Amino acid sequence: MQDYIPPLRDMQFILAELAGLDQVAALPGCEEASPDLVAAILEEAGKFAAGVLAPINRDGDLQGCRLQDDGRVLTPDGWQQAYDQFREAGWLGLSLPVEFGGQGMPKLVSTPVMEMWCAANMAFTMLPILNQGQAEALLIAASEEQKQTWLHKVVSGEWGSTMNLTEPQAGSDLAATRSRAEPQADGSYKLFGQKIFISYGEHELTPNIVHLVLARLPDAPAGVKGLSLFIVPKYLVGADDSLGAKNDVRCISIEHKMGIHGSPTCTLSFGDGGGATGWLVGAPNRGLETMFVMMNEARFGVGVQGLGLADRAYQMALAYARDRVQGRDAVTGESGKPIIHHPDVKRMLLSMRARVMAMRALLYSAAGWFDIAHHHPDHAMADKYRRYVDLLMPVAKGWCTEIGNDVCDDAIQVFGGMGFVEETGIAQYYRDARIITIYEGTTGIQANDLVGRKILREGGATLRELILDLRDTAAALNTAGLAEIGDGLADSIDALESAADWMLANGREQLADVLAGAVPFLHLLGTVCGGWQLGRAALAARARLEVGEGDGPYLAGLVELARFYLATIGPQAAAHAATVCEAGGALTRFDEAAF
Amino acid sequence: MQDYIPPLRDMQFILAELAGLDQVAALPGCEEASPDLVAAILEEAGKFAAGVLAPINRDGDLQGCRLQDDGRVLTPDGWQQAYDQFREAGWLGLSLPVEFGGQGMPKLVSTPVMEMWCAANMAFTMLPILNQGQAEALLIAASEEQKQTWLHKVVSGEWGSTMNLTEPQAGSDLAATRSRAEPQADGSYKLFGQKIFISYGEHELTPNIVHLVLARLPDAPAGVKGLSLFIVPKYLVGADDSLGAKNDVRCISIEHKMGIHGSPTCTLSFGDGGGATGWLVGAPNRGLETMFVMMNEARFGVGVQGLGLADRAYQMALAYARDRVQGRDAVTGESGKPIIHHPDVKRMLLSMRARVMAMRALLYSAAGWFDIAHHHPDHAMADKYRRYVDLLMPVAKGWCTEIGNDVCDDAIQVFGGMGFVEETGIAQYYRDARIITIYEGTTGIQANDLVGRKILREGGATLRELILDLRDTAAALNTAGLAEIGDGLADSIDALESAADWMLANGREQLADVLAGAVPFLHLLGTVCGGWQLGRAALAARARLEVGEGDGPYLAGLVELARFYLATIGPQAAAHAATVCEAGGALTRFDEAAF
Repeated sequence: MQDYIPPLRDMQFILAELAGLDQVAALPGCEEASPDLVAAILEEAGKFAAGVLAPINRDGDLQGCRLQDDGRVLTPDGWQQAYDQFREAGWLGLSLPVEFGGQGMPKLVSTPVMEMWCAANMAFTMLPILNQGQAEALLIAASEEQKQTWLHKVVSGEWGSTMNLTEPQAGSDLAATRSRAEPQADGSYKLFGQKIFISYGEHELTPNIVHLVLARLPDAPAGVKGLSLFIVPKYLVGADDSLGAKNDVRCISIEHKMGIHGSPTCTLSFGDGGGATGWLVGAPNRGLETMFVMMNEARFGVGVQGLGLADRAYQMALAYARDRVQGRDAVTGESGKPIIHHPDVKRMLLSMRARVMAMRALLYSAAGWFDIAHHHPDHAMADKYRRYVDLLMPVAKGWCTEIGNDVCDDAIQVFGGMGFVEETGIAQYYRDARIITIYEGTTGIQANDLVGRKILREGGATLRELILDLRDTAAALNTAGLAEIGDGLADSIDALESAADWMLANGREQLADVLAGAVPFLHLLGTVCGGWQLGRAALAARARLEVGEGDGPYLAGLVELARFYLATIGPQAAAHAATVCEAGGALTRFDEAAF
Repeated sequence: MQDYIPPLRDMQFILAELAGLDQVAALPGCEEASPDLVAAILEEAGKFAAGVLAPINRDGDLQGCRLQDDGRVLTPDGWQQAYDQFREAGWLGLSLPVEFGGQGMPKLVSTPVMEMWCAANMAFTMLPILNQGQAEALLIAASEEQKQTWLHKVVSGEWGSTMNLTEPQAGSDLAATRSRAEPQADGSYKLFGQKIFISYGEHELTPNIVHLVLARLPDAPAGVKGLSLFIVPKYLVGADDSLGAKNDVRCISIEHKMGIHGSPTCTLSFGDGGGATGWLVGAPNRGLETMFVMMNEARFGVGVQGLGLADRAYQMALAYARDRVQGRDAVTGESGKPIIHHPDVKRMLLSMRARVMAMRALLYSAAGWFDIAHHHPDHAMADKYRRYVDLLMPVAKGWCTEIGNDVCDDAIQVFGGMGFVEETGIAQYYRDARIITIYEGTTGIQANDLVGRKILREGGATLRELILDLRDTAAALNTAGLAEIGDGLADSIDALESAADWMLANGREQLADVLAGAVPFLHLLGTVCGGWQLGRAALAARARLEVGEGDGPYLAGLVELARFYLATIGPQAAAHAATVCEAGGALTRFDEAAF
């Protein structure tokens, strides 16, 4: 299989020109993120991704994980060595607080790094992602003593982390959670219940695993307002950090999945032997709030998985298309040329590259907004970008995971018959990608969040503010002599605005109709935001070209990329808008008996 | 896993109301296809699909095929018994000539039957499909003596069949074929070469296998005009049909594939031991013509695979959505209801059903046209529908396989996390489906055929004729008081016509630009034809409702289905049309160095 090539040039362009690395590095607390240091970090991360993680990805898929009779879960060959190197190099804490052993880098820096881990080996990367998510949750909700006990180990990666939410009857709807926690005289709790779909729920990669578990206290109210959060370690921990007795947590099965075979997906049973010892994190019955903060982080991370998988799939398809000789030129009749010269193959590759760059620009921009929201001293500025992050988080997750799948699908198509055969490795990307539109909230869940919580609830205020920004870019494109791109973008913004108007006008009276169009609306907003970002890229590229800076063909290619996107993907905005406004009526009228 | 339910009601509606079973049964040679007999055939086929083929589908996926050290290929448990039953019941020859042991049924009857085989067990079904395809090829090209020797065995299924086209360097482009055939003194040939991706190239299900092989004669011209077709049996056959010595053909490997694990995909080596004995079929250097006739058949069959897989995936998703309880009603807050009540889940299911019905109506209509083309005494009538079949064959294959994949994808999404887990069985449908947009010519190949051979070459004559028929349906919908559907259809026809005009105007001067939009054009034509067929279904359903015939809710559901399709899928026509006209320019300008 072709080596993974860290896309450093594209990353640097977006960081500098679109996502505002300079501005982020000027924020209080982010000063270390100088261009030089960031470039060095990306280069080292790229080497690690390409040299350590990518080479074990396919073996991880082939070998998978194995549950032993003694309850141990074995991960694929090479996982242990790679994890040890990863941990020792300090990658895990890149954007976690210095106070607990992290490096304190802004999210804008950790995002491209994360992209490379996902591109190289998504199944492996899920392990450190869990530590990062758990660290965020503990930072928000844990007591100072808990932080001192657990956070250093979680941030360093010395111990693994898990998130225990799902139960057989409680998937998308955590209100149905049944796991329970009984208070003990010493202030600890005994936990009982079964959790499913627990990524890295059991493994031997670290000497201990810190489970974060949602469960109900005896007097908890029904529903999501009765969920509390508990730390339940695999091994109990002594005062001197020494590992004590094994806790009452067992892995009773691992799933046989379509993809991410290298990541063990466990069913964990808590309390079969009298109760698993745990400690309450944060206030009773407020567990879901903490989990939601953490899940927002995780959702962004899953969007980045979509980007990473798509980019690697694009790289593989591009390499194959440049190498594979087949067919004759439809115009000249010439044969003996690689398939990239066939118009349809070139179309697929260009479409893949356009979507990868659109996702990358959107996700990095969102990471920059996140940093501004957290660090900017101007309250209004911080607030604006917090609202942008909130509004677009479901798009970052929902749209980038859907597009990530689409790009992997196109990659298979470029490979033709060799794409269906496992040995080329591209099939793994297609299979691995299929989970990302599902976990951490399906696309439908994201879309309901977008339409319900993020738009209808505030009467569309932030969306209208965003639309003004979008229109500024369209206008700037026209001013810059890129009217073809500007007009295309303006058309797609018109479609977005008309659909938003319709939703806002009907959200109260016909909520079910509006929600029937929620996923098409998410696609619409993602499509427009992708065009917006590529339009911004075209503007930046044009500006550099005009002053004679940079790599001419590369920059000209970015302008053409925006043109191609607006010509081929942009028109879908109007189709999505039509569906948003029309789906609900026909849906409501349809009698379920006629299915 | 939920049982497969033969969709007999939908099939009967389409056969009677849209695909013209009455007219077909009135054709000379098709008289036996009376409504009663057809109903009995479909019922029996449904029982066989649900009772025999579906139950072994998942084990076939899990177990796969195994190449033994002695060169034998073992198929999954249950394959032998199912194949024996299938053969003994005479299903294989359903639409093959009575003269050679078939039943002589029209294609309109064998198409729904084939749909059920594919829905129940696609990996199994590939074996009899190969016999059917080979029988068609031999009927066209074989000598009378060859027909007597081989056809009875192929039509009955006593012997298996294979098609040997692809070589490592000759996939989509058969011009690069290197396998060669040396004439022998006795009129036979010795074949040498390697063929890859040979479905059921080796197995023990039948005592003999008849390989049909493309190879070059010593004096053959270069390119596709130098390919000849040969029969090469696994075992040589004596004058009394007795099996003689093993021929010089070996299976040297089988592929490890993403799906259709129950179908062995073999690399066959011919002539390692001195030459595989074969016989020329048809004229020298004319092999590809015969293969193309056969491949046209096979392409239609692959379109039917898309339909079958989609319908089964839809059935599974529907059953899951009716059973799985999760979440609260977004409007009332009620919990405890199955997920089909969530608007987005209902949207996915309705969209799946709409696309399944659109594909089914299009494919059955095309099957009816095929029968008219072959049997109608009126030359003009036969010619019109032959041209329709020719025009729409790439759509039947390309569009129905793409949509088949999309529907399987939506089915996974309805299952959520359980869709990614293999035990529910839906993941297999997603994986199995991924080959159908590739084999028998990728979607790109279909689209080039559509735009190049079927439209540009004749100046768009048949397409313009079809557009008149499409417009008739739109007008009839308006007349019938179904203006919402009629207007939606008319809009999509406008988009189709504008894209066709652009292609025809630019096909000569800017062929590469036009071909860059070929796949979007294929999607466009498929989208419009799907809307056309559902519009026809709505008209027929409305007519029955008006006279008070039939099942009211079912018929009303068909009207709503058309409305939903035109509201949610129809608008994509305009987006595809924009892409057709715009993709090429940006594509041509894009410098390959900037990828």
